[in-house]
Amino acid sequence: MNKKYYFTLKSNRLKKIALLLYTLFFSTAVLSQGNISIGKEHKIFSKALNEERTVWVYLPKDYNNEKFSPAKYPVVYLLDAENSFHSFTGMQQSLERGPYASIPQMIVVGITNTNRTRDLTPTKVGIADSQDKRQDMFQDSGGNTNFIQFLEKELRPYIDSNYSSSGYSILNGHSFGGLTATNILLNHPDLFNAYIIIDPSLWWDNELMSKQAEALQPHKDFKNRTVYMAMANERKASKDGSTSMMKSIRKFDSILDYKKPKNLRLKLQLYENENHGTIPIPAAYDGLRFIFREHLINVKEATQNPSVVEEQFKKLSKDIGFNMFPTENYLSWMANYCIRTNHVDQGITFFKIAAKLYPESNQVKEALARAIHQKEN
Amino acid sequence: MNKKYYFTLKSNRLKKIALLLYTLFFSTAVLSQGNISIGKEHKIFSKALNEERTVWVYLPKDYNNEKFSPAKYPVVYLLDAENSFHSFTGMQQSLERGPYASIPQMIVVGITNTNRTRDLTPTKVGIADSQDKRQDMFQDSGGNTNFIQFLEKELRPYIDSNYSSSGYSILNGHSFGGLTATNILLNHPDLFNAYIIIDPSLWWDNELMSKQAEALQPHKDFKNRTVYMAMANERKASKDGSTSMMKSIRKFDSILDYKKPKNLRLKLQLYENENHGTIPIPAAYDGLRFIFREHLINVKEATQNPSVVEEQFKKLSKDIGFNMFPTENYLSWMANYCIRTNHVDQGITFFKIAAKLYPESNQVKEALARAIHQKEN
Repeated sequence: MNKKYYFTLKSNRLKKIALLLYTLFFSTAVLSQGNISIGKEHKIFSKALNEERTVWVYLPKDYNNEKFSPAKYPVVYLLDAENSFHSFTGMQQSLERGPYASIPQMIVVGITNTNRTRDLTPTKVGIADSQDKRQDMFQDSGGNTNFIQFLEKELRPYIDSNYSSSGYSILNGHSFGGLTATNILLNHPDLFNAYIIIDPSLWWDNELMSKQAEALQPHKDFKNRTVYMAMANERKASKDGSTSMMKSIRKFDSILDYKKPKNLRLKLQLYENENHGTIPIPAAYDGLRFIFREHLINVKEATQNPSVVEEQFKKLSKDIGFNMFPTENYLSWMANYCIRTNHVDQGITFFKIAAKLYPESNQVKEALARAIHQKEN
Repeated sequence: MNKKYYFTLKSNRLKKIALLLYTLFFSTAVLSQGNISIGKEHKIFSKALNEERTVWVYLPKDYNNEKFSPAKYPVVYLLDAENSFHSFTGMQQSLERGPYASIPQMIVVGITNTNRTRDLTPTKVGIADSQDKRQDMFQDSGGNTNFIQFLEKELRPYIDSNYSSSGYSILNGHSFGGLTATNILLNHPDLFNAYIIIDPSLWWDNELMSKQAEALQPHKDFKNRTVYMAMANERKASKDGSTSMMKSIRKFDSILDYKKPKNLRLKLQLYENENHGTIPIPAAYDGLRFIFREHLINVKEATQNPSVVEEQFKKLSKDIGFNMFPTENYLSWMANYCIRTNHVDQGITFFKIAAKLYPESNQVKEALARAIHQKEN
């Protein structure tokens, strides 16, 4: 660090003079300033909740790319968006990028809170001790039913009519948000295909969720649901050294295990070095990669043999229980990459796959004709 | 998922009708739309590079909070901002939040590329094979000196005069960005206090960086620099199965180790399940937490005994080799939390610490007077 420079900047006045001098001698000043934007805010009036709600929507990079046929995207619904939207969409845009993407491009819908405890708890729970500071907070608890009504009957139809969604959807929730996700998994299992449930408050109401899991029919069919559940190391950093959260999560997991559910991909992961506050980022990152563990394609192999791509998407579709297809953009990229690296036959095959999946695309038809012409000459 | 609904939405026209019906029966329409912004774009003309450069600046939440005395913030300089800014600042805002924050609030300056290979490589390297597709890319290589000049003489003074920076700064770079960070660590060690170096291209120019490390004086004093170096599992996902990247990183690390440098906190971490493309997120997350491993305060203990906070900041300052202090916001939060939970004496002590560190704050003086008055009555 340049010490002299640092000390001259202690007052605002000197700062301005320094900036002027710097501007004159080193560089021109700021030419323009703009905002770096990662999404759009929507206001929706909810009848189920009788209030206006704010949701934030992130769109993948290709969403508005007019060169390619409109794709249909999975949708992630994110609770506690005021805290989670920035970091979650940051990971999303990084993991979904390019031909080496580990996960598909997705739409992310972040739901911000108005009354968090009301919306994200399944039952009304009082606290006997009137001195307990949480008394006020718990007064409104138990509004999960209305909130789930909002998700199912209002927000999802709104997103599905305004955006190009594929029908595959994921719910991401932490703490009370994880409690809500668990409640939905057990009682409204058709609502989401996959769940990232992060350090959920399963201690709620004397472990209500575990009681409900106990009441499940053995071998219940979960219809290809995926659940990634993450648990922080509460021993390490809890305020009072208690482990009620960990105990309740382990109990829920062991009950589900014992019930031997069918067609449920469930993974419980302990994070030794994370506490309840730090766990959301690594858990969401790992959760996304767990759900789409069959997504990554070996580009090198695919360049030799395009059927690798079709096989991989079949594997992925079977694994998640939902048909997924490569985008026109991806197939065109692979085709052009093959042609550039002297694998013209494979390039033609990729364009043919694209033409079959996107029959209305003129771009693909023209590129395919060009590639065939190039080969014949 | 509501199947009936889904199938009615196949055409755009039906979509619009469905939206209208939905709007009439379920909810009112969108009331307003705004952008979710995470930073500001600045344009700077660089003399060193003879071109205009675009940088993106993220500010922590409290930066413009007028209730508190202006704080001074560490600054992270982020290479390849078009790819890394969204995800890095997302993790940053999540980890720096609240009284349980794992890292300090920081300013993040993202540098976008114009000619990446030119700027982020230390030497000009040609490729003998004229058929090699990288021929064009490498033509311009070797511009690191000018780029580092831009960082040191132009960008840093610009940031220091426009923003409230503390003087502590971190460089985060991946791939060629990691190569640049390594070059700066060896040849311009005064420029940054800490480095997050992610899967750096240390194979560059016949392992030039290792040759330079070999030439270091044994026991060289690195003046409390921190280096977190992350290495992907190249065996798993490289395009051609080669491991030249891993070999060159391990070699560099072992040379530094053998030279027994003084006052260098260096950690090399292998990521078994990450490839060159996926490693930036977990590595930056772990790197930030490694640098500030002494930052997290046990709030419960501090409520009993405020000196815990002073002790922790002393430990942190010693560990990173730079004096760090708790912010006025943090101390006020702790003071008020103590008073709310009937630890009035401890609350007064927190306000006294704040009054000593921020003597010009009227907010602190008034709150301290109120707390003393409350205790005496």
